[in-house]
Amino acid sequence: MEKPLILVTNDDGITAPGLRALIRTMKKIGEVVVVAPDSPQSGMGHAITVDSTLFSKKVVVDHKEGAPSEYSCSGTPADCVKLALRVILDRTPDICVSGINHGSNSSINVIYSGTMSAAIEAGIEGIPAIGFSLCDYSWNADFEPCLGAVKKIVSEALTNGMPKGTVLNVNIPKIEKPKGIKICRQARGNWKEEFDKRRSPSGKDYYWLTGEFELLDKGEDTDEWALSQGYISVVPTQFDLTAHHAIPLINNWNLHEQ
Amino acid sequence: MEKPLILVTNDDGITAPGLRALIRTMKKIGEVVVVAPDSPQSGMGHAITVDSTLFSKKVVVDHKEGAPSEYSCSGTPADCVKLALRVILDRTPDICVSGINHGSNSSINVIYSGTMSAAIEAGIEGIPAIGFSLCDYSWNADFEPCLGAVKKIVSEALTNGMPKGTVLNVNIPKIEKPKGIKICRQARGNWKEEFDKRRSPSGKDYYWLTGEFELLDKGEDTDEWALSQGYISVVPTQFDLTAHHAIPLINNWNLHEQ
Repeated sequence: MEKPLILVTNDDGITAPGLRALIRTMKKIGEVVVVAPDSPQSGMGHAITVDSTLFSKKVVVDHKEGAPSEYSCSGTPADCVKLALRVILDRTPDICVSGINHGSNSSINVIYSGTMSAAIEAGIEGIPAIGFSLCDYSWNADFEPCLGAVKKIVSEALTNGMPKGTVLNVNIPKIEKPKGIKICRQARGNWKEEFDKRRSPSGKDYYWLTGEFELLDKGEDTDEWALSQGYISVVPTQFDLTAHHAIPLINNWNLHEQ
Repeated sequence: MEKPLILVTNDDGITAPGLRALIRTMKKIGEVVVVAPDSPQSGMGHAITVDSTLFSKKVVVDHKEGAPSEYSCSGTPADCVKLALRVILDRTPDICVSGINHGSNSSINVIYSGTMSAAIEAGIEGIPAIGFSLCDYSWNADFEPCLGAVKKIVSEALTNGMPKGTVLNVNIPKIEKPKGIKICRQARGNWKEEFDKRRSPSGKDYYWLTGEFELLDKGEDTDEWALSQGYISVVPTQFDLTAHHAIPLINNWNLHEQ
């Protein structure tokens, strides 16, 4: 049987240790092609490059024997997936994995996440896709403890297929031995930003975005709860954003006469 | 009674005719503050500016009497909303409106849309929010025919409030007299990209992203269907991306033993 073709990408850039760990793990399962940003793209959400040029080239990051095909791209994570599917790959990948992100993409962070935007882009194309994030922002984070679970989740996705219109958002707690895996919903929460205001030497005001995440959800079925209890959280995530339950409510507004 | 405070933003930039038309219309309803990107931000999805400086300044775009308070921002549409809420405004706005975008944000385009990311950012903060888009990419598009409907939808949102966890994605057909307003679901569809490959004078390969939208949905309850029939489409849009129906399916995977 042909080995599954695995497209690997991320948003921290092609040299990120989290990507390298994901590549090593995926090579145990299938044939790996890497198309990843040439520079960090955190917080890019589902941005794509329109009205601007997109550079891409084949690169060698890892000189060991059996190193996978790797391409860097000047664009966003979503651009990487589009370029991989339309230009670089000669067959449709069996799965697309993104990450392992250096830092959490749980709760509302899914909205801002370049890691998840790559997975969602593949999902829109009907390709099973998973974003992985470790809740450790350090560049030197230890990815080893989570690689067994990453391999298991990808293998199960290849075996079972993905429910139509969904991708997985997997977050991994920063602990030596996660207790297991919980299938969760996205916790309600938001960011309480603080803008650090400064003045440039030439007198222009500018800001640095800082802030703290605020959890607004006490449920014990959420990703935040699972992570707080030492579990890996898996949230099936969709790109049909319709709030179906709200349709009858809006239909009651006074919008229909001319 | 205090006039409602209306935060106006967009992704085409602070000088875009679609924004100016929205400002004129909103001034008939309430007190308007504009915080918008200083340059076009189309396709930015829900990008935010992290690890980079964000410049903002008060500007005068419209010198007429009664011109609203306006601020330009070097960041993305989501940045504009964050900066407005945390730094610029001294009270919480009653509603945030984004647009009017020069071009459609129906179907899967909601995912890539800077216009909608601004509305979603406000929605996350619990503020009623609406993104407006006219299905005409021209800079000189005629916004006049749709302004009555824009005013009506904003007024109804102020009167009725917004269903929790939802914002509205409003798309307007490019016709002289829309037939009415339909509350819809997001049509399934995607982009069939083609990358136009070129070589730079120094010998580097680069690409321009082009492509065509492909509708994959024959439903007569979708935004694409409504627009094709001459109606304004209103899709209630949510930022809880959980595919709740998929949770039991993923729970059947073999993930739970160690």
